[in-house]
Amino acid sequence: MAVYTDVSDEDLRPFVAEYDIGEVMACKGIAEGVENSNFMLTTETGPYILTLYEKRVKSGDLPFFLGLMEHLAARGLPCPLPVHGRDGEALRRLCDRPAAVVTFLPGMWPKRPTADHCSELGSSLAALHLAGADFSMDRSNDLSVESWRPLLEQSGSRADEVRPGLADELSAELRVMESDWPGALPVGVIHADLFPDNVFFRHGRVSGVIDFYFACTDAFAYDLAICLNAWCFEPDLSFNVTKARRLLIGYQKVRALSAKELKTLPLLARGAAMRFLLTRLFDWLNTPADALVTRKDPMEYHAKMRFHAGVRDIGAYGLDATP
Amino acid sequence: MAVYTDVSDEDLRPFVAEYDIGEVMACKGIAEGVENSNFMLTTETGPYILTLYEKRVKSGDLPFFLGLMEHLAARGLPCPLPVHGRDGEALRRLCDRPAAVVTFLPGMWPKRPTADHCSELGSSLAALHLAGADFSMDRSNDLSVESWRPLLEQSGSRADEVRPGLADELSAELRVMESDWPGALPVGVIHADLFPDNVFFRHGRVSGVIDFYFACTDAFAYDLAICLNAWCFEPDLSFNVTKARRLLIGYQKVRALSAKELKTLPLLARGAAMRFLLTRLFDWLNTPADALVTRKDPMEYHAKMRFHAGVRDIGAYGLDATP
Repeated sequence: MAVYTDVSDEDLRPFVAEYDIGEVMACKGIAEGVENSNFMLTTETGPYILTLYEKRVKSGDLPFFLGLMEHLAARGLPCPLPVHGRDGEALRRLCDRPAAVVTFLPGMWPKRPTADHCSELGSSLAALHLAGADFSMDRSNDLSVESWRPLLEQSGSRADEVRPGLADELSAELRVMESDWPGALPVGVIHADLFPDNVFFRHGRVSGVIDFYFACTDAFAYDLAICLNAWCFEPDLSFNVTKARRLLIGYQKVRALSAKELKTLPLLARGAAMRFLLTRLFDWLNTPADALVTRKDPMEYHAKMRFHAGVRDIGAYGLDATP
Repeated sequence: MAVYTDVSDEDLRPFVAEYDIGEVMACKGIAEGVENSNFMLTTETGPYILTLYEKRVKSGDLPFFLGLMEHLAARGLPCPLPVHGRDGEALRRLCDRPAAVVTFLPGMWPKRPTADHCSELGSSLAALHLAGADFSMDRSNDLSVESWRPLLEQSGSRADEVRPGLADELSAELRVMESDWPGALPVGVIHADLFPDNVFFRHGRVSGVIDFYFACTDAFAYDLAICLNAWCFEPDLSFNVTKARRLLIGYQKVRALSAKELKTLPLLARGAAMRFLLTRLFDWLNTPADALVTRKDPMEYHAKMRFHAGVRDIGAYGLDATP
């Protein structure tokens, strides 16, 4: 939970006056999101979300993120639609930070995702991949396989503070990924951070997909791999094969996975686990214990990575391994 | 900023179904409030505030707090109105905690209060005191002068960790208050925690008074003394006599202060500073550094207490001292 910047009435009034959304009624910081400051902004025309982009988001990337949301919303994806000011600009400034107002989406994110949620998630993810196909902008994935060794080196031997031997183990694991990471998979816009708190449901259907601030151009199957990790493990870190199966079948109802995508999924999931392990490890070692943000346990993703390292084929994810 | 309890969709749906407010559209934790968990609850009929009462609020006091809000709202005070369930009950349970839904109030609290804000505040505070006059319930102020020595003793010699000699200094200061604390002042329902973040403004007028969870029966002038401390010092802790004057004149436009209330105001303000100094001191010494709640500096109130200790009469607050 995080609100890093206080927005005063005097700051907010002239900012909102640049839009055609009526006068400010209220503005309350939301205890969600980690990277940016988010506010529920209520005006005479209804509720909106106001986001102030804090330092972890590169301002040069914001046109990609806002353009993508606009593109996807225009194609019927339930994602926030950036509101343009009277001058046509959606990306503005408030309290010395880049800022944007987007539409409010109904729904709640599932605190305890079920297999039904996973099925709906799969279909929505595939729809997102298809809807993004004709988006004209590109953004390389700066958290993909090439970035992992430099990221590990930033934590360095301090990784062993979390678990003795971890630095060496991760380095060896990285060698496998660096040599075997698959190329030539179907590529396009991916969300790259589709955790349960970024997906709203209403009446059992996906009513909102939010937080596009890691979106980039990468393999579609890697996005699915991120979801396998974020949605299909139980709180005790056991893998729920039913959820995985429903996720994959839900996805394939909308977009078929190629034989190569299915074959490489275990390695992609292992890599996706490495990616979150490494950023969490870095944050764990570098976040002051008294910070407002709760640190996330990197070892959760260590367990997930080991699970996928032991997977031989997509039979482990509930699909038929010999199609 | 604080949300202590996660509320899931499955918990929330049956809870909201007990009210006549339509279906849940969304529910987001608000990064405001320190004692309880607050959510912006949006249903088909509009926005509401959902509060889960955490352990610092005594559940036996909740009927007083909710009854008071209802009483004041019925008399036109802009305070949250508790929403009753279909069975007539406003105080319910959610996630194993007492919980209530109240109406949403427009407006924003002033991050940088001005003298105009102080004037409006004064009038609203007096209106609150008058509107509470015929409220039938009582709640003694468990944070008044009798409680301060036990509170100081709970911090004990550890007070000196904050500032060498502080324990002895506070003990001496307490002796003055214990011997001179005024009786026989006009008494009634007071808010007792009317800090800027509990007062919303819109178009320069008070549009909302919230957070009645310290409300109690005590001297009206003590409530004003709390406001003097919370609204009339600048960030550098200098006292702004214009703000104080406007606060007191605004108050007296609605309710005249007696000669005794005016005469005892410096001591009441000194005591009000002691009260917040002591609770902050206790929290400072007992809140883990990594808690989600930001600890507030007790020494801010030490400076305010010393200011009032040097005040001879209400001339220091901008009023004519020899009426």
